[in-house]
Amino acid sequence: MKKVLFGFAFAVALPLFAQQKPVYLDASKPMEVRVEDALKRLTVEEKVAMLHAQSKFSSPGVPRLGIPEFWMTDGPHGIRPEVLWDEWNQAGWTNDSCVAFPALTCLAATWNPEMSMLYGKSIGEEARYRNKTVLLGPGVNIYRTPLNGRNFEYMGEDPYLASRMVVPYVQGVQQNGVAACVKHYALNNQEINRHTTNVIVDDRALYEIYLPAFKAAVQEGKAWSIMGAYNLYKGQHACHNQYLLNDILRGEWGFDGVVVSDWGGTHDTDQAITNGLDMEFGSWTDGLANGSSNAYDNYYLAMPYLERIKSGKVGTKELDEKVRRILRLAFRTTMDVNRPFGSILSPEHYEAARRIGEEGIVLLQNKDGVLPIDLNKVKKIAVIGENAVKMMTVGGGSSSLKVQRELSPLDGIKNRVGNKAEVVYARGYVGDARGEYNGVVTGQNLQDDRTPEELIAEAVKVAADADYVIFIGGLNKSNNQDCEDTDRAGLELPYGQDAVISALAKANKNLVVINVSGNAVAMPWIAEVPSVLQAWFLGSEAGNSIAAVLMGDANPSGKLPFTFPARLEDVPAHSVGEYISQRSKDVVDMKYNEGIFVGYRWADKQKKVKPLFPFGHGLSYTTFAYGKPAADKKVMSADDQISFTVTVKNTGDREGQEVVQLYISDKKSSLPRPVKELKGFKKVKLAPGEEKEITFTIDKEALSYFDDAQHVWVAEPGKFEAVIAASAADIKGIVPFELK
Amino acid sequence: MKKVLFGFAFAVALPLFAQQKPVYLDASKPMEVRVEDALKRLTVEEKVAMLHAQSKFSSPGVPRLGIPEFWMTDGPHGIRPEVLWDEWNQAGWTNDSCVAFPALTCLAATWNPEMSMLYGKSIGEEARYRNKTVLLGPGVNIYRTPLNGRNFEYMGEDPYLASRMVVPYVQGVQQNGVAACVKHYALNNQEINRHTTNVIVDDRALYEIYLPAFKAAVQEGKAWSIMGAYNLYKGQHACHNQYLLNDILRGEWGFDGVVVSDWGGTHDTDQAITNGLDMEFGSWTDGLANGSSNAYDNYYLAMPYLERIKSGKVGTKELDEKVRRILRLAFRTTMDVNRPFGSILSPEHYEAARRIGEEGIVLLQNKDGVLPIDLNKVKKIAVIGENAVKMMTVGGGSSSLKVQRELSPLDGIKNRVGNKAEVVYARGYVGDARGEYNGVVTGQNLQDDRTPEELIAEAVKVAADADYVIFIGGLNKSNNQDCEDTDRAGLELPYGQDAVISALAKANKNLVVINVSGNAVAMPWIAEVPSVLQAWFLGSEAGNSIAAVLMGDANPSGKLPFTFPARLEDVPAHSVGEYISQRSKDVVDMKYNEGIFVGYRWADKQKKVKPLFPFGHGLSYTTFAYGKPAADKKVMSADDQISFTVTVKNTGDREGQEVVQLYISDKKSSLPRPVKELKGFKKVKLAPGEEKEITFTIDKEALSYFDDAQHVWVAEPGKFEAVIAASAADIKGIVPFELK
Repeated sequence: MKKVLFGFAFAVALPLFAQQKPVYLDASKPMEVRVEDALKRLTVEEKVAMLHAQSKFSSPGVPRLGIPEFWMTDGPHGIRPEVLWDEWNQAGWTNDSCVAFPALTCLAATWNPEMSMLYGKSIGEEARYRNKTVLLGPGVNIYRTPLNGRNFEYMGEDPYLASRMVVPYVQGVQQNGVAACVKHYALNNQEINRHTTNVIVDDRALYEIYLPAFKAAVQEGKAWSIMGAYNLYKGQHACHNQYLLNDILRGEWGFDGVVVSDWGGTHDTDQAITNGLDMEFGSWTDGLANGSSNAYDNYYLAMPYLERIKSGKVGTKELDEKVRRILRLAFRTTMDVNRPFGSILSPEHYEAARRIGEEGIVLLQNKDGVLPIDLNKVKKIAVIGENAVKMMTVGGGSSSLKVQRELSPLDGIKNRVGNKAEVVYARGYVGDARGEYNGVVTGQNLQDDRTPEELIAEAVKVAADADYVIFIGGLNKSNNQDCEDTDRAGLELPYGQDAVISALAKANKNLVVINVSGNAVAMPWIAEVPSVLQAWFLGSEAGNSIAAVLMGDANPSGKLPFTFPARLEDVPAHSVGEYISQRSKDVVDMKYNEGIFVGYRWADKQKKVKPLFPFGHGLSYTTFAYGKPAADKKVMSADDQISFTVTVKNTGDREGQEVVQLYISDKKSSLPRPVKELKGFKKVKLAPGEEKEITFTIDKEALSYFDDAQHVWVAEPGKFEAVIAASAADIKGIVPFELK
Repeated sequence: MKKVLFGFAFAVALPLFAQQKPVYLDASKPMEVRVEDALKRLTVEEKVAMLHAQSKFSSPGVPRLGIPEFWMTDGPHGIRPEVLWDEWNQAGWTNDSCVAFPALTCLAATWNPEMSMLYGKSIGEEARYRNKTVLLGPGVNIYRTPLNGRNFEYMGEDPYLASRMVVPYVQGVQQNGVAACVKHYALNNQEINRHTTNVIVDDRALYEIYLPAFKAAVQEGKAWSIMGAYNLYKGQHACHNQYLLNDILRGEWGFDGVVVSDWGGTHDTDQAITNGLDMEFGSWTDGLANGSSNAYDNYYLAMPYLERIKSGKVGTKELDEKVRRILRLAFRTTMDVNRPFGSILSPEHYEAARRIGEEGIVLLQNKDGVLPIDLNKVKKIAVIGENAVKMMTVGGGSSSLKVQRELSPLDGIKNRVGNKAEVVYARGYVGDARGEYNGVVTGQNLQDDRTPEELIAEAVKVAADADYVIFIGGLNKSNNQDCEDTDRAGLELPYGQDAVISALAKANKNLVVINVSGNAVAMPWIAEVPSVLQAWFLGSEAGNSIAAVLMGDANPSGKLPFTFPARLEDVPAHSVGEYISQRSKDVVDMKYNEGIFVGYRWADKQKKVKPLFPFGHGLSYTTFAYGKPAADKKVMSADDQISFTVTVKNTGDREGQEVVQLYISDKKSSLPRPVKELKGFKKVKLAPGEEKEITFTIDKEALSYFDDAQHVWVAEPGKFEAVIAASAADIKGIVPFELK
């Protein structure tokens, strides 16, 4: 600096300082060259500072060198409001309301990767405009039990479906120069006792069921960051886990991005140093470190790490590797000068939310064509149920949002009906609407002092003389419903809803039940109710999406991304497997005895276990006829591909979309295999009478199982079947073929 | 969106959305084309929203279109800490400490545009790293009276010096993609009653004295924004002033940037609409607007403007023009993808602060070569005075900072002296250290219950047996010292310091008085004290800068940017002019009767008014000899230039810098003119014995006065003199010439 300044000591009109741009700031240089250049400029203290939070949601860059700070945000359904520097409470800003997109279960239920790209692109734009570096999502933990309070944030029970759906989300987010952070890696399949559960799972289930979506996000989606889970695996917390992070994520998959701890998921400095954690957030360390006025200095990867380096206990090899990863994150995000500016609250984002919601709603049952509602033939519609009026974008834990607007189902229906009919409402039941997370009350409490009997009587009265009755209930975002840090108490609908529904079914035959939830629920009244919609948590446009499906403006095309079991005992985690239902301060083992037989794999295997609704199920207001499927060859080799074709025709009278599903069945195998496994799907839009040919092309990967003894994927020669289906239980045709 | 999505309905691997980049986001398009493209996309509501704050320091962009928010920051000496969304209190962040640079009076005292570029570049980097769009500075209000509590934020009494120094500051800031906001435009020359003072000034003084630095900042510095002042001019508040904003700033100077109100400087919707205000901040409107939960909706340029448009009372011509200016600001700052990333707290920034401080310190008097201190000959140094230990980066109003570190003069001296001598300290006097601004306590109260007599006795005792006594006093940042919103009560040093100094002078002949202030002070003890340094508010590196000058590591080269009057009555604002010393709720006229005769112009004119220290004065530890100046011609024409040369030689034994000053004297003029006016200066560094030739080239602009009757600048033919000087009172040579 000195030289440069003295260089033009007599200039009066001063030119810009003619500085050589350092390599790390030179975007024309290869990233790894920039990383090494930056790395060599950093002090040990600066490097350690980058490894841990400085506030609830941020971590330092290198202020001296102009490497920006890192700002994280929940995720995954909208951009979280700003919180105070070091408290969970909101900061009271007015520029931080967001568009809430449908929950990820809904996205998975679209079975449409385009919707996932639209979702990622849109939420990534919101994150970018809000100057966030990392979006803490999406979540792809496998749906192992319907009690998991956080299933609504994930993409269902099937690794292939979750893989296909997570990749475009990641790509869509990251095209905004915002990192996706795929979570929670791995085996975080329930909320109760999540910090002290040590998962015991065989390698086949790990590789075939629980990891594929993460692998796809990393290898195909090119995710720039991944979040460690709270639980333990092989006795190590997932946030600093030799097996998951060093061996698999980096060793086998070649991940070069950042491993972020879940908030408070770090527990050990030495493990955090050696076992692959890069950035530590939310650690609840008590008190202040020696002479420090900053509690963050006490983080596991803060002063304790620095002291170990300074005392020579550990070297700086791991430190440099962590910092390299963090520098890559900076170059890919805040320091990418080509990234767009993002946007928030745009009509396009609302439209995206609405469309994803419409495509994700699943028509579970529709007897006698009760749906859609023809407003020309209807004078009065009764809407019953608390979820018709309840905000679902608040509560539920870290995914709670501050929305610019959320249209309730009731208001959506009223808007759509307009003056064509009368819409009347009764509450029907009163839910426990309180939610609390990290000491902050979320959720919305709507007082009502009436007894259940009074509420039912009112609802029945309202329903009795209506042309249609739409019951809108399900779960909510309160504790022990669909909510982080708690699990559900059982499969049943809470708050006495079953009684309300049965009473309504007696009062009016034109009954539609809309189940708003992120989880499967028991439906003991299923035979009494003609029409049932699974409507998820739909975000800002909930009311519009639901109204569009009810009135037939949108033809339902969602398919279940997980099995609706008839009974909790039919869920393998609760029959042969283990499920922890109590919190423990000590680490407790939990065995995934069911192994690979999760979801429809279990139902297929047991045969007598007939689900309430199977995986992949979803009806339409039109009907589809499948042709006879065919293959392009009868025998394929390991280096070959094979294609299957099938025609699908819209045989009804309105446009609709069908999700054609391809399952592969290994007829004989050295190791036990599921009856069939999803290996392809395509969503096709068909006009009335229109027919299209669908082609699936697969290779040996779709035929492979994970040989845990050899630790390799094996496509074993022999006989296979390609199963073309409309759900896991609705097989439309089978094509046998052979692998040489 | 819909079309694009359906366009690849069968793609599985999804490409990036192939969207046409809108023109306003296309950096390859000319800015005005982008401005018009963005403008036509905006709703009236979006346009109005951009005109006013959404929080204490931010205003909205266009969320829907990805046009970022605007974040303002005080300025001008460092980047202010983050405050709560809608409160003045700090937000409690830990990433918002800054490097404090010397106050702008010190920068002006360097008489070195390179230092100004270094300053602007450095503070601009800090603003950029902190993601600020606009730095609320620099200030260039002319030093009219030494009572003005905010003089320390400005650049002195001379329009030419302020012009030359403001331009590089603006350029340096803006090369970071951060807008400078030149303030306070205009005629805000005192703090008392600043909201209700209506300045009455003749056009000659307005154009010749008060506006040139703003004009240079706009036309040469290309400042992207300017801040309106609190006061009134011609009966209109400066923030919405037809004459200052529409006629002069835009009409005459062609400014295409943004006019930002001072915080709470807006008072009238209609005037704000028509009289040139673009962005309104800090208005203290009471209550909430109709149906609004947001007090900002009640701003003058918020709902009241929107209502006028919607009711047809006003059109949208002014609205569009304001939004065009704001869009330009976005394109020049946050949306300039080529802007650098900035940096904070870097060694380079500390070095810049230290160097500017060293170059700005003025050696006012140095009898018997008392300074510099030779540490080889000294055993004990006594440091006396509260300002030796007092933080000067807090308090003072909006320029108050949260520094990463501030080295006090005492600690700087101790560090420099090391173990070469003993450094002892006594407080000497106790100042009122409380400061409060906008309801937030700033400043630092150091308790001491002793009487003045006790304190003096202690100081004298400490001083008596020291080899050197360094008294460090002056003003501070408390109310009625150097502090926003208050003025000083008089020219005298406060807290009984004169008595302390006189007592010390009697106790020890090796006395150095260091006056820390942003204003001239009376020095009744000047004959008793051999050495006096004017040390300003020096920021983070205060102690190092002062120690370097004291010990001779740095050879003082600062020159006074304003006159030190002997008595307040010698200041024209207080003799022939008016000065308001009381607050008034009603608007009060204040006449600048002194006209153009401000500072040395007054001293020159009065002749018998001998200042304590003249404008441009400053000694060195070496000596300089001037040769006889010469011109390259005797007669110049109006389209011509003329050059003057003079040799300067370092006749002492150490390297030093001299500021060679060129004044122009109009020997005969149709209108009264100052005896001489500064029209050139050059700072030259000379080794011992070294001689350099300095050349000044001027054109008719340097000879012109503003003819208020014709409203034009006039260079009147006739005889002139080029006066080469080392201060306004130390003339080294005169070269007569003539303008044809």
